[in-house]
Amino acid sequence: MKCGLVAADGAVLHRETRPTPREAGGRPILDALLETVVELGQKATADGHRVRAVGVVVPGIIDAATGTVSAENLAWVSTPVLAELKAAIGEDRPIVLAHDVRAGGYAELRQGALTGTTNSLFLPLGTGIAAAMVIDGSLVSGDGYAGELGHTRFIHGDAAEQCACGQWGCLETVASAAALARRYGARTGRTVDGAREVLELLAAGDPDAAQVWDDALTVLVDALVLYTTLVAPTRIAIGGGLVGAGETLLQPLRDGIHARLTFQREPEIVAAVLGEEAGCLGAAQMAWDRVAADESGEQTV
Amino acid sequence: MKCGLVAADGAVLHRETRPTPREAGGRPILDALLETVVELGQKATADGHRVRAVGVVVPGIIDAATGTVSAENLAWVSTPVLAELKAAIGEDRPIVLAHDVRAGGYAELRQGALTGTTNSLFLPLGTGIAAAMVIDGSLVSGDGYAGELGHTRFIHGDAAEQCACGQWGCLETVASAAALARRYGARTGRTVDGAREVLELLAAGDPDAAQVWDDALTVLVDALVLYTTLVAPTRIAIGGGLVGAGETLLQPLRDGIHARLTFQREPEIVAAVLGEEAGCLGAAQMAWDRVAADESGEQTV
Repeated sequence: MKCGLVAADGAVLHRETRPTPREAGGRPILDALLETVVELGQKATADGHRVRAVGVVVPGIIDAATGTVSAENLAWVSTPVLAELKAAIGEDRPIVLAHDVRAGGYAELRQGALTGTTNSLFLPLGTGIAAAMVIDGSLVSGDGYAGELGHTRFIHGDAAEQCACGQWGCLETVASAAALARRYGARTGRTVDGAREVLELLAAGDPDAAQVWDDALTVLVDALVLYTTLVAPTRIAIGGGLVGAGETLLQPLRDGIHARLTFQREPEIVAAVLGEEAGCLGAAQMAWDRVAADESGEQTV
Repeated sequence: MKCGLVAADGAVLHRETRPTPREAGGRPILDALLETVVELGQKATADGHRVRAVGVVVPGIIDAATGTVSAENLAWVSTPVLAELKAAIGEDRPIVLAHDVRAGGYAELRQGALTGTTNSLFLPLGTGIAAAMVIDGSLVSGDGYAGELGHTRFIHGDAAEQCACGQWGCLETVASAAALARRYGARTGRTVDGAREVLELLAAGDPDAAQVWDDALTVLVDALVLYTTLVAPTRIAIGGGLVGAGETLLQPLRDGIHARLTFQREPEIVAAVLGEEAGCLGAAQMAWDRVAADESGEQTV
């Protein structure tokens, strides 16, 4: 868990990272989250600050109507995260409960690679793939359900593998950092240390690494062409671990998209700039925006 | 061209249909549009009404920054429609220049099948296919470029045909009304009187009609699953000529989507209710909304 205390002007006063008790799953993860929020509040007070609002970001589906979260990799099923946060923090401060990728996109929009755009996309390629969509000037939430570009089908026929989500041929099964490592392993019988090692092998001229990389680029181009046709972003910021590949990733995406588009508006393809801290900064930004809007109570994004 | 005079309360005071000089193309079509707008204004005045605003809807890409329109089937290429409308009508009344399908979606949202929704989709299946997207309570424009679901790729490999847009395997090449008639003709060597006749043949048990219909349903399910995953609508209203097939169209779409979704929120699939008049009613609604907002000048949607 990446967390911090952030001042109204965006200055990060304190940063810390805490382990997520993933193996314990479900309730222990929620308890760890609540404990973290409470203890950070205590630290802020001890340091002479006043906590004005709390922003918490999580992965999964955040149902806007109920404030519950379903997230497979946290073993949460309609878990009442917002209600538990309110019980732990009290009613007197605004709480924003947001999706980690949407919060990251919000940070990129406000202070990062998407600054100044009104139609844009933040697409982190990490363990999984989800998207933060900025449309007509607003970050889209879809009642908590929008942006699951990683779970749209881009692989067809026999080549399609089943995704963790239950569907077949999802973008995420080929183009996520996890998929790169898994597919390289399946192809070669060798175990690699994540996508990072696949990228090293790629740079060293390994043909199997080149093939899994090529497969990923192909479906990423498909996905970006589709998104461009449907939503017309002017800029797409790629984030997550894979963007460490830099132009090795970005230039083929630009070339592939350029070759495919006909009547559509061609988006810029850039690297996201806030890195792993994007979600945390976005959470703080959303919380401060709530203070500025002078709204009390809670909100999901 | 479908046109009308619409009162503030939505009452349609006058309706008329005028021919579009399609064969003449380009400038003559624009002239016919301008003449229609001016003459309708004269009629309104002669009937004792005061024209408060003008709404014009067209197909194609309406560039929000310039007010120009590019529409292949009108032979318009960056045609300055908004500037010409201003010159013809004068500066003292608001002008809304909107996309025909988005205007239709707006009418369905305000007074039709999408009433009460905040995340929904209007998808008319006519000669072509475009979508009006309602996201987080607003009709999406994407600077005029959004909603081209008909030009996303759902047919892969050798089965993909080239679309009028220049891309390959677009939804529109299989699932539009025009595609149904064309594909039935290509399959059988017979010329049919549009999708209407294909639907009659389907009802009569014709196996070729069943096959092209089945192909259309397959890609429509693909498209609606994709849209649901990315944008999470609660309701999808299908319009256009094909919705004349009623439950023959809607029930297989519902079944197909239900079978494919895993974690996503399942949308209702309903028929649009405003028919061919949707675009015209939407244009009037948008124009009156501009009057209510007390904004002068022009706007594109």
